[in-house]
This record gives sequence, structure tokens and C-alpha cells, in this order.
Amino acid sequence: RLDEGRLLGALDELASIGAIEGGGCARLALTDEDRLGRDLVVGWMKALGLAVTVDAIGNVIGVRAGRENLAPIMTGSHIDTVRTGGRYDGNYGVLAGLEVVRALNEAGVTTRRPIAVAFFTNEEGARFQPDMMGSLVYVGGIGLNEAYVAADKDGASVGDELRRIGYLGPVKPGALKPHAFVELHIEQGPILDEEKVQIGVVESVQGISWTEYTVTGISNHAGTTPMRLRRDAGYLAASVNLFARKLAWEMGGDQVATVGSLALRPNLINVVPNRAIFSVDLRNTDEAKLKEAEARVAAHIAEVAAAERVEVEAKVLARFEPVIFDAGLVDRVEHHARALSLSTRRMPSGAGHDAQMMQRVCPTAMIFVPSVAGLSHNVKEHTEAADLAAGAQVLLNVMLELAGT
Amino acid sequence: RLDEGRLLGALDELASIGAIEGGGCARLALTDEDRLGRDLVVGWMKALGLAVTVDAIGNVIGVRAGRENLAPIMTGSHIDTVRTGGRYDGNYGVLAGLEVVRALNEAGVTTRRPIAVAFFTNEEGARFQPDMMGSLVYVGGIGLNEAYVAADKDGASVGDELRRIGYLGPVKPGALKPHAFVELHIEQGPILDEEKVQIGVVESVQGISWTEYTVTGISNHAGTTPMRLRRDAGYLAASVNLFARKLAWEMGGDQVATVGSLALRPNLINVVPNRAIFSVDLRNTDEAKLKEAEARVAAHIAEVAAAERVEVEAKVLARFEPVIFDAGLVDRVEHHARALSLSTRRMPSGAGHDAQMMQRVCPTAMIFVPSVAGLSHNVKEHTEAADLAAGAQVLLNVMLELAGT
Ligand SMILES: NC(=O)NCCC(=O)O
Ligand SMILES: NC(=O)NCCC(=O)O
Repeated sequence: RLDEGRLLGALDELASIGAIEGGGCARLALTDEDRLGRDLVVGWMKALGLAVTVDAIGNVIGVRAGRENLAPIMTGSHIDTVRTGGRYDGNYGVLAGLEVVRALNEAGVTTRRPIAVAFFTNEEGARFQPDMMGSLVYVGGIGLNEAYVAADKDGASVGDELRRIGYLGPVKPGALKPHAFVELHIEQGPILDEEKVQIGVVESVQGISWTEYTVTGISNHAGTTPMRLRRDAGYLAASVNLFARKLAWEMGGDQVATVGSLALRPNLINVVPNRAIFSVDLRNTDEAKLKEAEARVAAHIAEVAAAERVEVEAKVLARFEPVIFDAGLVDRVEHHARALSLSTRRMPSGAGHDAQMMQRVCPTAMIFVPSVAGLSHNVKEHTEAADLAAGAQVLLNVMLELAGT
Repeated sequence: RLDEGRLLGALDELASIGAIEGGGCARLALTDEDRLGRDLVVGWMKALGLAVTVDAIGNVIGVRAGRENLAPIMTGSHIDTVRTGGRYDGNYGVLAGLEVVRALNEAGVTTRRPIAVAFFTNEEGARFQPDMMGSLVYVGGIGLNEAYVAADKDGASVGDELRRIGYLGPVKPGALKPHAFVELHIEQGPILDEEKVQIGVVESVQGISWTEYTVTGISNHAGTTPMRLRRDAGYLAASVNLFARKLAWEMGGDQVATVGSLALRPNLINVVPNRAIFSVDLRNTDEAKLKEAEARVAAHIAEVAAAERVEVEAKVLARFEPVIFDAGLVDRVEHHARALSLSTRRMPSGAGHDAQMMQRVCPTAMIFVPSVAGLSHNVKEHTEAADLAAGAQVLLNVMLELAGT
């Protein structure tokens, strides 16, 4: 059985690194805070007797040997956060994995297959795009060089930052191919909490489309420039925000659309902006609909750009099709949750996760626990202790079955 | 007669301080660049034999004595620029004033009244609000203490920055009361250029309303948060941008409306923004219509804020009613322009100017010259040399008549 107190204590300790007002965390990928968080978790892995390796994209894997030298059963997630993030997103899955190991150690159980606990680099995509970068490289989705050159808004690159914080490891990403991968995560959405369900049995992850638009207009005086002569880069950005909202409503429940990031230049009260850089985040469980949403946003932008006489450049920052998890493994998650008398619900994941990349190389599934009021990427992100413990227990039981004794 | 070559040379030299790509200037008020610009112009004033004083808000006035100890005829403008400004806005009026003095010196003319050339602090309002701060303090529109506490986005205050750059002078602002004030300025709008008119005879300045809105919503995950649950601060900001455009079109030609500045937090692709801070700049020549525009923006914001369930705080950064210049002095500007065989057009000013403050204490008028393509607050701001020379000659002739010989 899993020790709930230890899990909560470890979450608290990790959350103290990069702690921000309101109970949240700021541990953006490859910052000094990320390094401190990594060091802490690596220390815990070693204390539990795991053989720890760091790969060339900074993914860290701790392995507990099995009775036979077979492909391991892997769990894990990420420990990076967004700038005003919570303390559970990602961290929970990694630390619950370590509690699974601790429980096995304490029970003196040696499984047939090895057990591995991983944390992947830059899952959030908040500082560097694309998101799920570490697991994407792990499964060969992009090469190391492509990942290394990704730069943040200040021009710092993934390669340089990995080296700087000492996490550009010697191991080739993906060298260890798991037999199966199971990720435990908070839902980050409102469904389980609204329906009072304890365990989400995740069948799929919706598609993700991130585009950054750079709009170039003409700066001019806000007092003297008649409306007919304006070529306002900010106006186009604003119109896309409203269009995204309308589009999501029109396309119905599964479509979400967000303008989360926007910068204007020169960004002064009395100057019509000549530059706007903004992002559009579109998601849908249905690839055809996601494509439709992308096409409609592009058409809207073309139309407004022509009317406003501004130039627009689009850059795809991330694009992942919807992912269907392994049906057999999804059944095992559901089975073990029910065997523990927990209420369950099958559902898609609204957020992107490392598991969606791992599905490319091995049977994969996910376990969700409720997020109070559906809050995430918010300092007030919260999951009740009993739910955290229940999710970790499901993870333990699923992994134990898969690893065999 | 005025020396065109000297005027252009002086404009070039001043524009080399804070020069930016594209031929523009970045000399935000009370920065190191502003200090260097001030030092240069003060040096020129002294070289011309002017008695230079600096007042407690950093306004600099150079006086050329008259035959009688009477109130002076004053001209002047400002030398601060916006972040991506041109080289003529403000600077032209100040340096043309110095060329007027040089022409009188060289002709050996002593006028009956003294002649004064001023440059006022922080006319642009780009770094500190309100705009026209120096002239506003000069005429007693706000007190020194109110001006000193105005802070930029990094928290630096006007008082501290004046002290830091050495321009918190000993003189009480407004101590020198002019007999009349005439400001020469580029139009900054398209009218004279479109109509191929050489001199704008400025009869009035439109009203200015600047408000900063701070919107507080709830940050949440862009992938998991259904549209119905969003409380998106950025959405409200975007909707105001579009509403402002619509309002201006509905209210007709004289109404302009601009969202020039906007910042989102946490400003990340995959996070619904919980904070938006943005500005609205409204202008109208008619005070009743300006009030109507303000009321309609406020009503729109209240409506969207209720629907989106976000909080909005409004802070007035600047509010000036339309100003009518002295009819007699406006006639003199028109007279002297026509006497030089220049084409003229009576017009309101779309931009705010120090002259609009000076009208509170003495008869005031303005002279405009064309801005190519109506560009201003843009590095490509341009006025043809012949137009610059013509405007300066009108200024000389008007001042000579007012000062008497
Ligand atoms: N789980 C999570 O927040 N992932 C970040 C990538 C995304 O925006 O979905
Ligand atoms: N002339 C000028 O650009 N003044 C700045 C204040 C304004 O925005 O009108």
C-alpha cells in the first residue's frame, strides 16, 4: 500500500522550489529553479536505490531492476511548470512514481520486469516550444538538433540552457524502450470535479495546434490618424481573440481556442501599434475538426489583414494530432480503479501529456484525478489528498500487474 | 530671413541623440538620452546669448531681452519623443525658435518685447502620464507634487528622474508669464499633405481622454477549460479594441479611438490570461461627443465584464477638454503665412500640444507644416525641407510683429 503522507510531503518539498504567492510554482523549464527541482528529485531517486540516467535532452530516468532483464514498465511525467503554475501538474505523476518504488522497496517485492520512473524535459512548452519536448525527442518525433535550437523570448536556447544547468546528459534519448507506459496526472479540467468521479480513465488526448502570428502594420499618431488610414497590428490581434471565441462556440463543446500571449510594439498609449506578436492555441479531439478550426482562423486572419493592410507571418510552434491510448492498457486502468471501489469515468485529455508521445513507442495509458473547480495553470490548482492517494494506489496496482511478480 | 540650412543641421544633430533604426528617435522623457538632448539645446541657447532658466518641473526657457522690460513673446515645444518616434515632433518647434533668435541676432534687431524660447518636460506622455506635463504644471493645471509622483511602468518617478538627470531646476514653473505664445509644429496627420497645403492655421486642439484599464480574470489551462468556464482578462481587452474601432466609425470623422498599449499575464500560449492592462485613447473636437464616447466605452466594458465575470478597474491617465486658440492671434498666423504667398488651411489639431496649456494663461496660436503621408510617432516621420523653412519663416514674422521693433 502506498504512503499518502510521504507523497504529500514530497509534493510540498518540491513545491517550495520556485514557490510563488498564492501557493503556486514558477519552475519554467531549464531555469535555475528547474535545476534545483531536478537535483532534489534525482537525490530522492538515488536514495530509493534507482539507477539514474540523464539523456541528451535532459530527460531523467530512474530504474529499479526486475528479476529478469526485460523492457521496463515505465511511469513518469514532468516537473517543469508554467510561470504561474500549480504544484500538482506533472510533479504529482513523478513523485507518485517514486512512492510506487518506495512501496515495493518496503514490501521487499522484486517485480519480474524492471520498473522505471521518468521525468521529461519541458513538457509545458511555456518557455520553449513545442511542448512535450523531452518525450517527443525520446520517441524520435524530433531530432536533438531541432530541439536544441528552440529559443525562449530572450533568445536563450534549449541546448545552451541544458548545458548551463548541467542536464545535458550522455545517454541517447529513447535508448531504454519501455514495455508499457502509464502516466498519472491531475485532470486540469472541471469534468471529474463537477461529476464527483474519483478516477478518470483516459482514452485519448486531443489534438493540439499552436501558432504564433507576427503582424506588421504602421505605427502612427493616435490623435491625428483618421480611422480610415490606420494599419493597426493590434487590431488584427484583437479581432483574432474574438474570432477564436466565436469559432469555439460555433464548433461546439470539444473545440477550445485561446489567445494566451500577446505583445504590442511600441506599446504606448498614443501610438497605433505597428507590431503585434500573438499566439493561438486550438484543440480538438477530432483531427478533421481541428483542421477546420485552423483553416477558419487562417481565413479570418487573411480577411482582416487585407482590410487593415497589415502583413501577417504565421509560425507553427506545435502541432500534434489526437492520440488514442492502448485499449488493453486503458481497460487495466479501469479494472484496477474499480477493484479499489473507486468511481471511474472514461474521458479524453484536454491537456497535452508526455504519455501521448510514449504511445508512439509502447502501449500507453493515463490515470486522472480531479482538479478542484477545474483550475490548472493557476497558483490555486488543487487536488484533495484522498484523491491524490487514490490515484497513486491505482498506479501502483496497474504497474504491479504489468511488471509481474 | 531664416537660415534653412542651419535649422536642418540642428535637427540632424539633435536627432543623433537616441537615434534608432529607420531614421527615428527614442528620447523618452527624463531618460539619459533626454538629458543629452537637453544639454545640447541648452548649450545652443547659451551660445545665442539667451538667459537660460530651468524650473522645478524641468521646463527650460531661454530669454532674449527686449528694449522694454515687458512680458515676452514666447515660442517653443518639447524635445522628448515616443519610443519609436520621429525627429521633427516637438524638436522642430524648439529649434525653429532658436533660429528665430539667431536671425534677430544676425540682423542686429532688438525687439520691444523680450523673445523667449521654451522646451517643456514630458509632452509626449509616453513614459509618464499625463502628457503635456511640463506645460500643464507651468500654467498651474496640476501641482508639482502631483507631477513628481507620476511613475513609469518600472516605478521610476518624475521627481526622482528629474533629480537624476539634473533638471529639477530652482525656478517656480510659470514665474515668467508670456504676453503671447506661438507654437510651430508638424501636423502629425495627413490633411495638409493630402490637400497639398503649406501652412496649417490651427484654431483648436481636440479633447483628449486617456484611461488605463486593469482587468482581473482567472488563469486556467487553455486545453482543458471549456469556453463556458473561462474568465479571460485578455478577451475583454480584445473586445474593447474592436468596440473602439466600431465606435469611432459610428461617431464619424472627428472621433478617433485607439488601444495602443496592452500587457497580458502570465502571457503564455497555453494559459487563459488572468490579467490584462490596457489603455484607451479617445479624442474629439467636441467635448459632448468625447463624453459620449467615454460613456459608451465604459458601458461596453461593464457589459463584457459582467458576461465574462472579470473585474475591471479604470484609472484616468489624462483628460483635457478641447481648446480654442485666441482668434486674433490665429488671424495673425494666417495673415503672415499668406503674406509670404504660402497656401493655408484653418484646422483643428489632432494631437495634444503644449500650446493648448499655454492658452490658459495667454493668447496662444499654432502653426502647422505638412507631415508626409500623415506619419508621426513613427521613425519614418518626415517633413520636406521647404515646408520646414516656410513654417519657421511664418513663426519669425509672427513673433516679430508681436514683439514689435
Ligand atoms: N499538462 C499540461 O499542462 N501540458 C502542457 C501542454 C498543454 O498545454 O497541454
Ligand atoms: N504632439 C504630440 O504628439 N503630443 C503627444 C500627446 C498626444 O498624444 O497628443
